[in-house]
Amino acid sequence: MQPYWMTHFLLPDQEHAHAQAVGEALEQARESVAGLVGCESFEIVFTSGGTEANNLAILGLLTSPAHRNESPGHVLVSQLEHDSVTAAARSLEAAGIEVEMIPCEPEGVIDPDRVKSMLRDDTRLVCLQLANPVLGTIQPVREVADLCHNQGVRLHCDATQVFGKLSVDTTRLRADTIAISGHKFYGPKGIGAIYVRRGLHLSPIAYGEPREMGLRPGAENVPACIGMGAAANLASRCAGEVSDNFSELSARLLKGLQSSLSNEPILLAEDAPRIPNTLAIEMPREVSRIRRAARQLVFATAQSTEPPDEITRALKAIGRTDAQIGRTLRISLGWTTSRDQVDRAVGMLAEACG
Amino acid sequence: MQPYWMTHFLLPDQEHAHAQAVGEALEQARESVAGLVGCESFEIVFTSGGTEANNLAILGLLTSPAHRNESPGHVLVSQLEHDSVTAAARSLEAAGIEVEMIPCEPEGVIDPDRVKSMLRDDTRLVCLQLANPVLGTIQPVREVADLCHNQGVRLHCDATQVFGKLSVDTTRLRADTIAISGHKFYGPKGIGAIYVRRGLHLSPIAYGEPREMGLRPGAENVPACIGMGAAANLASRCAGEVSDNFSELSARLLKGLQSSLSNEPILLAEDAPRIPNTLAIEMPREVSRIRRAARQLVFATAQSTEPPDEITRALKAIGRTDAQIGRTLRISLGWTTSRDQVDRAVGMLAEACG
Repeated sequence: MQPYWMTHFLLPDQEHAHAQAVGEALEQARESVAGLVGCESFEIVFTSGGTEANNLAILGLLTSPAHRNESPGHVLVSQLEHDSVTAAARSLEAAGIEVEMIPCEPEGVIDPDRVKSMLRDDTRLVCLQLANPVLGTIQPVREVADLCHNQGVRLHCDATQVFGKLSVDTTRLRADTIAISGHKFYGPKGIGAIYVRRGLHLSPIAYGEPREMGLRPGAENVPACIGMGAAANLASRCAGEVSDNFSELSARLLKGLQSSLSNEPILLAEDAPRIPNTLAIEMPREVSRIRRAARQLVFATAQSTEPPDEITRALKAIGRTDAQIGRTLRISLGWTTSRDQVDRAVGMLAEACG
Repeated sequence: MQPYWMTHFLLPDQEHAHAQAVGEALEQARESVAGLVGCESFEIVFTSGGTEANNLAILGLLTSPAHRNESPGHVLVSQLEHDSVTAAARSLEAAGIEVEMIPCEPEGVIDPDRVKSMLRDDTRLVCLQLANPVLGTIQPVREVADLCHNQGVRLHCDATQVFGKLSVDTTRLRADTIAISGHKFYGPKGIGAIYVRRGLHLSPIAYGEPREMGLRPGAENVPACIGMGAAANLASRCAGEVSDNFSELSARLLKGLQSSLSNEPILLAEDAPRIPNTLAIEMPREVSRIRRAARQLVFATAQSTEPPDEITRALKAIGRTDAQIGRTLRISLGWTTSRDQVDRAVGMLAEACG
């Protein structure tokens, strides 16, 4: 990224030989991100992050004049979605669009048959994430996309949680739009992208000089795009290896906890397909006590039940009680996590619960 | 910025000692940006850039439920504004808001008396930039703000062009909202901010987890905020010195061109107050010829008259003909521009026009 601050700091559309090089590097980065999801580079639009990508997919589709002759219509949003999906959809209720939540099954996944029963003649969009960031559960996006397309409904997929863990392919997934966040797979913060299936018309949701195929105004954040492109290359190249390593370490973590604790911890959504680095574990002790004794560990816990935060919502969606939610840790492993670190984490958690 | 990628990469709201340090650094950056405009840090909201700042100011004010009982109303936008201002205002025409352009005087400035005559009972907002990026002209924001406030009208000021050149002070300027762009004063790309006068209610224009006083969702772009904060400190500290240096170099450039060309070049808007680093110069030759002979210079020229680009619009606003526009260069000086570079530029331009 550094050269694009220090020497090649011009914008692609400026008049200078350096600007042309910047434009070429930007398009190279776009190709790298396209490679991450298996699409053409013209189907990738850079955004300021995953939140903007989700907003652009939903608001850009539902406010597009290309679809203006449709009735306000109906949108289905899975109960497990990120706030930037749910709140974007809800913002359209003022325009008469009806938003309905798809309940999550106790296993932590959305059931395609239930989606099928909820689709209506005026349904315009279904929002279904690829993997839940709390439970790690992989959702049946392909099955739901096929159902949707049979009825002329579009499907938006927030896939931000999956990159760097599993490989993603637009031709297998068949979503119409896919949200991508750079910093979720070791790219920089402040950058994301949206895949927009060729031929699908979105409207921009911000106004200014037309950039990014007319879908996003404002000076391109070139260094961040370059950084995200490099991270995408790495994530594409290592997907298989990383995934195997995550599976091994996750199993080691869980086995370690189970053998060192008398009251066994419970891995939530254990029977569902899951991304291999994310574990929601119900411990035998309250989180507050664990946190005090395991200060060197970074894990996530429910912070608020009212309004429910992301973790609370996911755990409530699979029927956990408040007491169970108060004992649940969300642990995720990174590319650099080692066996030794996993063993030390097990030791700290066991001590905290002992 | 680098530590905030490499070690302190957590987000402020995550549960870890590092996260607290990140939060503190973010607030320090916010104070630095507040220092740049002379406001309190709680009046600064980080955005992804100047375009988003202009969009948030205009759409956030005019769609806010706090002002819902008002009629759709009337908005005045100066003819010199950036696309992100004009297009954001125009996007509200679909909601019944009337948008009217304030014509520019031949001197390159907006006349407060003309604004006064255009204000109506239902005017809700006036948009007036602090300095024009093409002509360099400084606009009478304070006078127009006073006029507006006397009638209960809000004023948004796009000040993106001024930072790093002149000092800005909210108490002198009296705008209700001010747009700031990081990369315009040597901060990183992909980051900007908006000053929102205390007590003024805006609505967010994007949806998700509430961050930035509820005005902007999405993970904070911490490294970029830190970088913008550092640039703000530098710009605040050097404003006087930088400004004097720019004035001297601009005079040198102009004098050099005038003495080396038989057909004297014309500095546009010469009699208006101007930021000292920006010169729109009408040359005796066509731009295309100059560009070929002065390849080492970076300058901006009109790229398109239909639709008119930013440079064409500013030049047409002061009554220049297409032929004159085709001979105009917009030259800007940077903090590191030296006398020697100015002299070499003069030589190259003189040769190109010889």
